[in-house]
Amino acid sequence: MSADLDELVLSLAQRARAAALVLANAPRTKKDLALSKLADLIDASAATLLEANARDLAGPEAQAVSAAARDRLTLNVGRIQHLAASVREVVVLPDPVGEVLEETRRPNGLLIRKVRVPIGVIAIIYEARPNVTIDCAILCLKSGNASILRGGKESFHTNTALAALITQALVAAGLPADAVQLVPTTDRAALNSLLKLDSYIHCVIPRGGESLIRFVAQNSTIPVIKHYKGVCFVYVDRAADLAMAEAITLNAKVQRPSACNAAEQLLVHRDVAAKFLPSVARALAAKQVQLRTDAATAAILAPAQIATTPATTEDYATEFLDYVIAVRVVDSLEAAIGTINRDSSNHSDAIVTADEAAARRFLAEVDSATVYWNASTRFTDGYEFGYGAEIGISTDRLHARGPMGLRELCIYKFLIEGTGQVRS
Amino acid sequence: MSADLDELVLSLAQRARAAALVLANAPRTKKDLALSKLADLIDASAATLLEANARDLAGPEAQAVSAAARDRLTLNVGRIQHLAASVREVVVLPDPVGEVLEETRRPNGLLIRKVRVPIGVIAIIYEARPNVTIDCAILCLKSGNASILRGGKESFHTNTALAALITQALVAAGLPADAVQLVPTTDRAALNSLLKLDSYIHCVIPRGGESLIRFVAQNSTIPVIKHYKGVCFVYVDRAADLAMAEAITLNAKVQRPSACNAAEQLLVHRDVAAKFLPSVARALAAKQVQLRTDAATAAILAPAQIATTPATTEDYATEFLDYVIAVRVVDSLEAAIGTINRDSSNHSDAIVTADEAAARRFLAEVDSATVYWNASTRFTDGYEFGYGAEIGISTDRLHARGPMGLRELCIYKFLIEGTGQVRS
Repeated sequence: MSADLDELVLSLAQRARAAALVLANAPRTKKDLALSKLADLIDASAATLLEANARDLAGPEAQAVSAAARDRLTLNVGRIQHLAASVREVVVLPDPVGEVLEETRRPNGLLIRKVRVPIGVIAIIYEARPNVTIDCAILCLKSGNASILRGGKESFHTNTALAALITQALVAAGLPADAVQLVPTTDRAALNSLLKLDSYIHCVIPRGGESLIRFVAQNSTIPVIKHYKGVCFVYVDRAADLAMAEAITLNAKVQRPSACNAAEQLLVHRDVAAKFLPSVARALAAKQVQLRTDAATAAILAPAQIATTPATTEDYATEFLDYVIAVRVVDSLEAAIGTINRDSSNHSDAIVTADEAAARRFLAEVDSATVYWNASTRFTDGYEFGYGAEIGISTDRLHARGPMGLRELCIYKFLIEGTGQVRS
Repeated sequence: MSADLDELVLSLAQRARAAALVLANAPRTKKDLALSKLADLIDASAATLLEANARDLAGPEAQAVSAAARDRLTLNVGRIQHLAASVREVVVLPDPVGEVLEETRRPNGLLIRKVRVPIGVIAIIYEARPNVTIDCAILCLKSGNASILRGGKESFHTNTALAALITQALVAAGLPADAVQLVPTTDRAALNSLLKLDSYIHCVIPRGGESLIRFVAQNSTIPVIKHYKGVCFVYVDRAADLAMAEAITLNAKVQRPSACNAAEQLLVHRDVAAKFLPSVARALAAKQVQLRTDAATAAILAPAQIATTPATTEDYATEFLDYVIAVRVVDSLEAAIGTINRDSSNHSDAIVTADEAAARRFLAEVDSATVYWNASTRFTDGYEFGYGAEIGISTDRLHARGPMGLRELCIYKFLIEGTGQVRS
């Protein structure tokens, strides 16, 4: 059984590699044609997709998850239309492949060109939401990468139905059917086997909960691009415009608490704490946000009769993804920077201040993927950055950091032209 | 014992992370001062270094290795002077940190700047040659990264003596002593423990034999940049200038057979095989190169009385690193490209041809880090590319591909300036 699975996964990876070699040199017109076909097929296949989704929702795995997770799993006509629309959005994005990034003529006459090319074969390991199947397939396709998709068992039938449409679209456009493949089993052994195929697969992107991501990072011999979590900070400096600070804190916390770029932590400079905290705490409480505070914050808020809970050490480095925020008073800019570099997940952190010197120092010294001065952390997003699409946000330090769009799904190769040069 | 080792390695990684935060914002002048001091200290410490090296050479590990490996391990006055000179070369290289790579003003007024910054903490796991200790330390330092060096047991005393000089130089320049640390034990358990510290270490670069590199890739939860091997091809097209083809083949094979960019494989188009092979085979044989051939090549060379050995399937994908080359006749350009994409290590491959269309197709379709038209594969090298320094050559597809210099030891962060923007 396990040997059969190994063979199945190996064959899939080998076919992906062969497809990747074709796809890397496929013209934009063919890739866009496949995407347009796919959008049409999704629109035309609502009934089939809903039927497959109903089978998933009736299954034991989908029955076992929370109502929120079940909702994310569910397709309806509106969501299917949205899926097709998201595919059409990628059609109009520029093709990242082929751009000459650097060109040098060496003293010996060699012409060295560094050209953007696809990574090759990308495996995406994800949970639940069926739209991830389409998102990942289309972004990999547009960037010239073959993809191997391994979704969760809760949406296996929906994913299988979507993958069938993708295959149809590829074939209709004259591209290899193996350019996008869904792993046809949700057996964990198949995943383990897949993660060792570094001869054929060049990159793994896990998307989902932290435990899935850690599992992939620990078991993969293939390079992984990942984002564990977003423990994002807002620091209100002593020179902050306090109305702006309140608006940014509120937006960063409550505009979408389940997002990885939502604020989980608030630091307030001691000099403005007495003035700022009661007002922001009232505003947060009005949005049902629970405050987990240090003693200094609690002491300021107690007379104002605002309910707080003492924070634990763990709270100070927790991604709540919920209507909860941890609040601390700090003595200085340096203390704020030190706290963030110790407790944040190096995702997105913000300072609110009118003091440019303080802001410049914060921007330089906070060691995170995106550092904000007088803006909400919620802007860390491929669309907000103008990338047009996003495959994820990296908190790693290799290859890509922050939002990843089509260009981040590429690498480069060197094309070197000579006239018979040899090395002496 | 193992718990003690875990603690030792954890403390080292934590101190490296603290040093990295300082180093990331250290001005060029301080980094260059440390490098200049180090060069002077190396020059002034020849006696100490030779003594430490003598202890290594007398040890059981050094006694056990081959004469060639022992030679690589050995320091002498000339090599020590060369070490100091290589440090001074890095002083004059530009600082890669701080360059603004992109700058965008979004419609909502946000200013997004993508700025080059150091990766953070880099662990380098290497074998034997003591000059790697200096190379890696200085390139990481110049690029603002803290480094953790883990050398082989054969050169432990030499490495320890060199690390002491580095620490002196750092302190003299007012930089954190922990910016460069040598793991003070060669116990394998310490390495295993180190490779799991992904909270503090951001990148691992293994340098050495393939088994070391595979061990690191398989056991690290930290992202790894690596280069397994160089199985490099020269393809002589039917439209090749045969004199040029012979010169390139010879240079690629014998100019330095132990280098990863040396050619190991020769493919010859059937239309020119009868004319090209006897001449190139004689020239290779004159340089003591052993020919491992397919039947077609052997049949051509037999009448010319040139000795050949039948190649095995394994030979066709082997990195000989020696005076050996595998030779095959191919029927077409497509067959050459297919063979290379199947058997090469995607490091450096060359076509020799006067046919531009054939060359363009080869450059586009050969899926390797560096692809050459009418030049020797031996040019894949940071110095030859004009980088001034090289920490290695990547055959991975993430972050960096091909020669890696100072800029490839960096990543970027986004600095975002607003005027109170919140997301709606």
